[in-house]
Amino acid sequence: MGKKKSRALITPKKLLRVSGRIIRRRGKKPGAAPGTMVHTGEKRVEKARITLIRYGADDFESREIERTEIAGCFPPPDAGRVTWLNVDGLHDTELLHELGERAGLHPLIVEDIVSVGQRPKQEEYENNHFVVLRMLRYEETNHQVEEEQLSIVVGPDYVLSFQEAPGDSFDPVRDRLRLARGQIRSRGADYLAYALMDAVVDPYFVVVEKIGDRIEDLEQDVIVDPRQATASAIHHLKNELLVMRRAVWPLRDLFNALLRDDSPLFTELTRVYLRDAYDHAVQVIDNTETMRDLTAGLLDMYLSSVSNRMNETMKVLTLIATMFIPLTFLVGVYGMNFEFMPELHWAWAYPVLWIVMIGLAVTMFIWFRRKSWL
Amino acid sequence: MGKKKSRALITPKKLLRVSGRIIRRRGKKPGAAPGTMVHTGEKRVEKARITLIRYGADDFESREIERTEIAGCFPPPDAGRVTWLNVDGLHDTELLHELGERAGLHPLIVEDIVSVGQRPKQEEYENNHFVVLRMLRYEETNHQVEEEQLSIVVGPDYVLSFQEAPGDSFDPVRDRLRLARGQIRSRGADYLAYALMDAVVDPYFVVVEKIGDRIEDLEQDVIVDPRQATASAIHHLKNELLVMRRAVWPLRDLFNALLRDDSPLFTELTRVYLRDAYDHAVQVIDNTETMRDLTAGLLDMYLSSVSNRMNETMKVLTLIATMFIPLTFLVGVYGMNFEFMPELHWAWAYPVLWIVMIGLAVTMFIWFRRKSWL
Amino acid sequence: MGKKKSRALITPKKLLRVSGRIIRRRGKKPGAAPGTMVHTGEKRVEKARITLIRYGADDFESREIERTEIAGCFPPPDAGRVTWLNVDGLHDTELLHELGERAGLHPLIVEDIVSVGQRPKQEEYENNHFVVLRMLRYEETNHQVEEEQLSIVVGPDYVLSFQEAPGDSFDPVRDRLRLARGQIRSRGADYLAYALMDAVVDPYFVVVEKIGDRIEDLEQDVIVDPRQATASAIHHLKNELLVMRRAVWPLRDLFNALLRDDSPLFTELTRVYLRDAYDHAVQVIDNTETMRDLTAGLLDMYLSSVSNRMNETMKVLTLIATMFIPLTFLVGVYGMNFEFMPELHWAWAYPVLWIVMIGLAVTMFIWFRRKSWL
Amino acid sequence: MGKKKSRALITPKKLLRVSGRIIRRRGKKPGAAPGTMVHTGEKRVEKARITLIRYGADDFESREIERTEIAGCFPPPDAGRVTWLNVDGLHDTELLHELGERAGLHPLIVEDIVSVGQRPKQEEYENNHFVVLRMLRYEETNHQVEEEQLSIVVGPDYVLSFQEAPGDSFDPVRDRLRLARGQIRSRGADYLAYALMDAVVDPYFVVVEKIGDRIEDLEQDVIVDPRQATASAIHHLKNELLVMRRAVWPLRDLFNALLRDDSPLFTELTRVYLRDAYDHAVQVIDNTETMRDLTAGLLDMYLSSVSNRMNETMKVLTLIATMFIPLTFLVGVYGMNFEFMPELHWAWAYPVLWIVMIGLAVTMFIWFRRKSWL
Amino acid sequence: MGKKKSRALITPKKLLRVSGRIIRRRGKKPGAAPGTMVHTGEKRVEKARITLIRYGADDFESREIERTEIAGCFPPPDAGRVTWLNVDGLHDTELLHELGERAGLHPLIVEDIVSVGQRPKQEEYENNHFVVLRMLRYEETNHQVEEEQLSIVVGPDYVLSFQEAPGDSFDPVRDRLRLARGQIRSRGADYLAYALMDAVVDPYFVVVEKIGDRIEDLEQDVIVDPRQATASAIHHLKNELLVMRRAVWPLRDLFNALLRDDSPLFTELTRVYLRDAYDHAVQVIDNTETMRDLTAGLLDMYLSSVSNRMNETMKVLTLIATMFIPLTFLVGVYGMNFEFMPELHWAWAYPVLWIVMIGLAVTMFIWFRRKSWL
Repeated sequence: MGKKKSRALITPKKLLRVSGRIIRRRGKKPGAAPGTMVHTGEKRVEKARITLIRYGADDFESREIERTEIAGCFPPPDAGRVTWLNVDGLHDTELLHELGERAGLHPLIVEDIVSVGQRPKQEEYENNHFVVLRMLRYEETNHQVEEEQLSIVVGPDYVLSFQEAPGDSFDPVRDRLRLARGQIRSRGADYLAYALMDAVVDPYFVVVEKIGDRIEDLEQDVIVDPRQATASAIHHLKNELLVMRRAVWPLRDLFNALLRDDSPLFTELTRVYLRDAYDHAVQVIDNTETMRDLTAGLLDMYLSSVSNRMNETMKVLTLIATMFIPLTFLVGVYGMNFEFMPELHWAWAYPVLWIVMIGLAVTMFIWFRRKSWL
Repeated sequence: MGKKKSRALITPKKLLRVSGRIIRRRGKKPGAAPGTMVHTGEKRVEKARITLIRYGADDFESREIERTEIAGCFPPPDAGRVTWLNVDGLHDTELLHELGERAGLHPLIVEDIVSVGQRPKQEEYENNHFVVLRMLRYEETNHQVEEEQLSIVVGPDYVLSFQEAPGDSFDPVRDRLRLARGQIRSRGADYLAYALMDAVVDPYFVVVEKIGDRIEDLEQDVIVDPRQATASAIHHLKNELLVMRRAVWPLRDLFNALLRDDSPLFTELTRVYLRDAYDHAVQVIDNTETMRDLTAGLLDMYLSSVSNRMNETMKVLTLIATMFIPLTFLVGVYGMNFEFMPELHWAWAYPVLWIVMIGLAVTMFIWFRRKSWL
Repeated sequence: MGKKKSRALITPKKLLRVSGRIIRRRGKKPGAAPGTMVHTGEKRVEKARITLIRYGADDFESREIERTEIAGCFPPPDAGRVTWLNVDGLHDTELLHELGERAGLHPLIVEDIVSVGQRPKQEEYENNHFVVLRMLRYEETNHQVEEEQLSIVVGPDYVLSFQEAPGDSFDPVRDRLRLARGQIRSRGADYLAYALMDAVVDPYFVVVEKIGDRIEDLEQDVIVDPRQATASAIHHLKNELLVMRRAVWPLRDLFNALLRDDSPLFTELTRVYLRDAYDHAVQVIDNTETMRDLTAGLLDMYLSSVSNRMNETMKVLTLIATMFIPLTFLVGVYGMNFEFMPELHWAWAYPVLWIVMIGLAVTMFIWFRRKSWL
Repeated sequence: MGKKKSRALITPKKLLRVSGRIIRRRGKKPGAAPGTMVHTGEKRVEKARITLIRYGADDFESREIERTEIAGCFPPPDAGRVTWLNVDGLHDTELLHELGERAGLHPLIVEDIVSVGQRPKQEEYENNHFVVLRMLRYEETNHQVEEEQLSIVVGPDYVLSFQEAPGDSFDPVRDRLRLARGQIRSRGADYLAYALMDAVVDPYFVVVEKIGDRIEDLEQDVIVDPRQATASAIHHLKNELLVMRRAVWPLRDLFNALLRDDSPLFTELTRVYLRDAYDHAVQVIDNTETMRDLTAGLLDMYLSSVSNRMNETMKVLTLIATMFIPLTFLVGVYGMNFEFMPELHWAWAYPVLWIVMIGLAVTMFIWFRRKSWL
Repeated sequence: MGKKKSRALITPKKLLRVSGRIIRRRGKKPGAAPGTMVHTGEKRVEKARITLIRYGADDFESREIERTEIAGCFPPPDAGRVTWLNVDGLHDTELLHELGERAGLHPLIVEDIVSVGQRPKQEEYENNHFVVLRMLRYEETNHQVEEEQLSIVVGPDYVLSFQEAPGDSFDPVRDRLRLARGQIRSRGADYLAYALMDAVVDPYFVVVEKIGDRIEDLEQDVIVDPRQATASAIHHLKNELLVMRRAVWPLRDLFNALLRDDSPLFTELTRVYLRDAYDHAVQVIDNTETMRDLTAGLLDMYLSSVSNRMNETMKVLTLIATMFIPLTFLVGVYGMNFEFMPELHWAWAYPVLWIVMIGLAVTMFIWFRRKSWL
């Protein structure tokens, strides 16, 4: 029944890791000049890896590049094709600084990329769009929702993406690009950006399903055998849903802003797809809220279950006590040592007393039954 | 009293079925090209059935058609008449793909039609409107609200509707068409679309009534005999209301958008009726919220009922214990074996002790009464 | 103290009667053509009664008319005067159908008039305004808020009003018309409509006052003698407030719409009065919400009261038990039959033991007092 | 610790007094013509007192006037100066009617002035502004928030103010006028109106402080000695905060409307000050909400405190009972009268039993300690 | 585990200190002319200190000035450079009055600067912008969030800042100015104002982290050893979060207003940075709300933990009582003194009774186990 697993405790630290990072960075030098780059995450990868993908309707090129090659990427040589630069690993601030300079990013963009506790948001700059999303993953071993920050910069004919650690989230997009599946190769950089955002939002549904399973497990526990560990697990789940909520709630505004925006970067054709992404975001938000309601319901049920069990225990105690206390009193009476107690000398007194006592017990039992205390 | 029935347990799985399907589809190929068609529901019917209805003010024709005949349906031959194509069964994605192509549907429409966990929504495309609704049915056997997705595409002179399984929801509309009852035959495709939406929203009132009956049953249980199963049933009901709420809340926005929309597809005449449908939707939402309040009230009452019963049990225990404990002490005193206990040798000691004990018990009883503990 | 009265139980059926009627009507023929008239209420009056009032600045005429005379009422003969047709009893759908046809009402208006479970609303049609309100009455015998639907149609020089049963709500308006009190006779149909709406909203204050009295009674119960019936009565009251809330919340939007509307039907002069009605509606809503807060507070107080009493009971049990249990043990010791128990043979053993026991009891009592357990 | 004081009970009647008055007025003649004047408050003063203040930049005149002099006040003789008419006492409806006629007030204004249960509001009429505010005072004796209605009418060069009873709230304003302190004498009627409103809002901060003190007292009670009276006092406080909230919440909208308004009555110079008043209103609202949160927290703490005490009582009972019950059983064993019980004849049986029993008790005590039940 | 520390009690006084100050000020002279300066805080510094910093792209000058030098600071001599006047200590109202006059501040600005209980806000005046913020600091010794008010006035080429006490918050800004780090020297007064606001918002993240740690500590307490002091500490934390919330919630509107504003004071370049500050504010608000949710969860968990422990205690009592009560009854039976009790004379009666009793106890123990009461 997975009771062992459910002993995992609440870890607000984890939940606050996001803010914790920001604090550590800014805490060191409050008042430091804005645009100062301080990486606030853990170093998750030894060396930052840069992958360059360049494609047009008819060609596709993908390779890992070195730092020295960055300069050659900007400005993107031929405007008809799209350049996608993906960076895995954010601890090398110098590298990112250089990349930012070459690509003409505003210092605040680069600052946000490396401080990995951002809320999902989109910002329009003069000649590009900056989007921050959070990738979610449900860790089955400790029932936690793991987060990773993804930053995307979309320019007229290039896309830059930044992840904390290498992952396989974008593999399907790469495959579609390589195999020219769908229309992705014939569309511009804005469609690629959409495809990446879609590849981030899609796995949310997996997390929703996993948490749904977890809710079902906990429900079994609550019904079959509610104990303190179950309550802890429900509280833990509530907190994980807080993490989830923080990642998905801002998406509604984010996609809405992209849709309503009159920026020329996003074409009408792509906006239809962004509307679809918005739709998915709303669905995830909807599911998250539903699961919060379910979890709150679980807690209510746990409490009513515990209080019911206490009630039952109490009834047993009451039954036993009230049945035996009068009897014990009776036998106490005939244990007294008075000189003049006529009953003591009657021949049938003892068996009669037994009959009286049994009768009394049966009467009380029936009375309790009728009062439906048993 | 239906206590057996009320033992039905919470099933978040059911509630999450909607998202579960989406997840399964998208979970398999996260990052798959948007517009990819994957049916996410169960195959509820052996073979998809297509029904073609074509009518004008003076004629009416209805027949089941084969896949090969789809091509002939588009573009609808004569503009003065309305073509209604209804598809039962969504597992045959190829069929739907072909139908989509012929009818000139955007790939995202077809994708949404087959992924049956959509939130109710309406989307305006270049030359048609896409509406998703959820049909609800209250299953009396397990007290669950069953859902089915209905997708409607409205074009200038055609309506396409897609259901997961054949049902009789649209029979009244077909009858009105066949018998030329009301004004339905003299109106255009937009009015037919409205009639279908109305036929989906109408049964919600039936579900509301059934849930209202259920609330009344549970209330009886709470007052007459509250037990753990009652609490479970209330929780279950709360979750069913979550299902209901998810189906009806988005309707307000949906109809509002259709009303405010300046799309030429919907005529002024039809808009008056859409306002009526909007009105019904608001009424269902209102009822759903009221029932949520009632259910929350039921739970409160269950808890106060349980706590009251525990209180009563406690009082009985306290009464019996406090009445007999002093008496038992007294008889214990005269069971002692001291050599020098003068009372033991008094002739009237025994009866006097009885009188004292009975007096004590009566006094305590009266005292309890006055303190209103009994 | 009215404890008997407060035993009235929750009746969600009553609360859902509104929706219940709608369901029954629509449930029978889901998909029936919109505009189909089905009366959903109980037949409250034997024969529908139609009263015709016609007045101008200088004349006034009032009489009951027969069905055959309806035809003669439309169009209202002389434009300078106002025609008011009031119908009591809605079961005679044929009559209403004819009246609707003569007055040129949209079929949806007539449908809404006879389905008596409408939410308060206002709708603008081409040449008239349709307003639905709910008349409220507090029934003292069962502490329920009784509802009745009132529909008003305002045209350029006529007002139609429809009630489920004859009542005296409009008598003051009739009196003012007859006696030419105030400015009502010199104003148009829009002012009459306002006067009728005002005559519906005014009695809400009476209901508020009655419910306020009820809250005070229940508060006494909670403080003086909280029992299960009190909890039931509070829950019942909460549900009645739900009924009330459903009737008054929509009024804010309703009057707001009438005020903001640029319909030529309502003159500037009348709008000042509608703003006053809006103001009253807001005040009633305010009161309703305050009473909901008060009722929630009552429930909290009931629970804390019950838990306090349980605590008190528990303390008495603990006191008695802990005082006598050690003593009973002691007397048990000297009831043992060991051959060698020296105390048994001491002459002063018995009185000394009494002193010890009394001393023990007093010590414990003082200890409890100091710990403030008593 | 003021425990006696905290026994004050909830008085919803008081809270509903506002609506109660309205109901009484309107309840008597539902449907009475709008604009009918019925005073709904208690007669708080024997004879209504009218004070006339007239001032310009260089002169100031203040005197009490008789009813007969009202006629001479309108229209205000010289436009350069400001006329302020203050009325204390609202029961003399004839006087107010006459005043209203002379000043050209809309009948609805006069109706609202005398029905003293208005929600704070502002209404723009053709040639004046009507503002209703509620004056608050914290009554220390019964810990209640006392209310009084203040109505202000601002015209181009006059201000009318109406209070239920004479008070000293406006004395500082009068002093500033008399002594020409600040800029009040050189500003117009709009600034005077602002000064009066400011003089109403300022004392709210005093009420906030008093309630803050009350919260602190109750907190002490909850921590030191929580009892039923404390719970009642907290509930009472919650209700007083409801009164407060009803008086201050509408102020945000009220001042906002005055600020946004393009009425020529309020000059730009005065609007800066109105923004300041708006600011104060928001601060009071903020404080009120904070105090509501604090009070809710108090109640939670009371409940957890009570449940903690119950837990403690329970532990003592359990300790005593579980320690003595086995011992009592043991001594019972050796009180049996079997013929063949070898222990009874052992010489050391008695002392050995004592040792065993003491050992048992100590063992259990240590066990409980380790389980941290003690 | 810091249990000692967590005994800190709720102190609403502290929370209300803010309003308390306002009340004291305004309480003394309700109705005093607006613009009257009364310092409402404690005198935190002996003598107000004024620091003058003047800089341009190429020069920097910083020195403490005397009151007599204020006159020379206005108007700022050369428009190309920025003048920043920082005042520490607000009790010297005369000084502030003079400064206000020289700088041409509206009287309401100066009034707000010295009444230190302002809500964060921004106000646009004719020729300058007034911003009020609250500096927060987490005091580890008593786990309280300490507040201080900061007022900033931004003019075309000057910035005035006012703090209650000298602090080091602005040191980094001063360092950046002195060392010409970043672009701060080449930007105008608006950028300096932004830098100061940023220096106020940055430390909020430190407070968030500290409170996060506190939540983690309390969680340990709740799980390991929940007691009354833990509940008090959680309540205390909730109240501190209220303080925090009041300081950060208004920031969203504040920065939004600055961003949307079309005031010429803030250049486009600076607005990009204000958007960043807005972003940080939203993140802090987000964290605050999350921590409120976590704290509410902690309280729930504390309650379920206490109720679980009570349940456990109850079970032990029930176990011991129900196992020994029947046995005690049995030994009581054979302690009776009836003349005719055959068992008493059987040779094996005593050992057989022991066997029976042990058997009974074991049976009950197994039964309890199976019912999982143990």
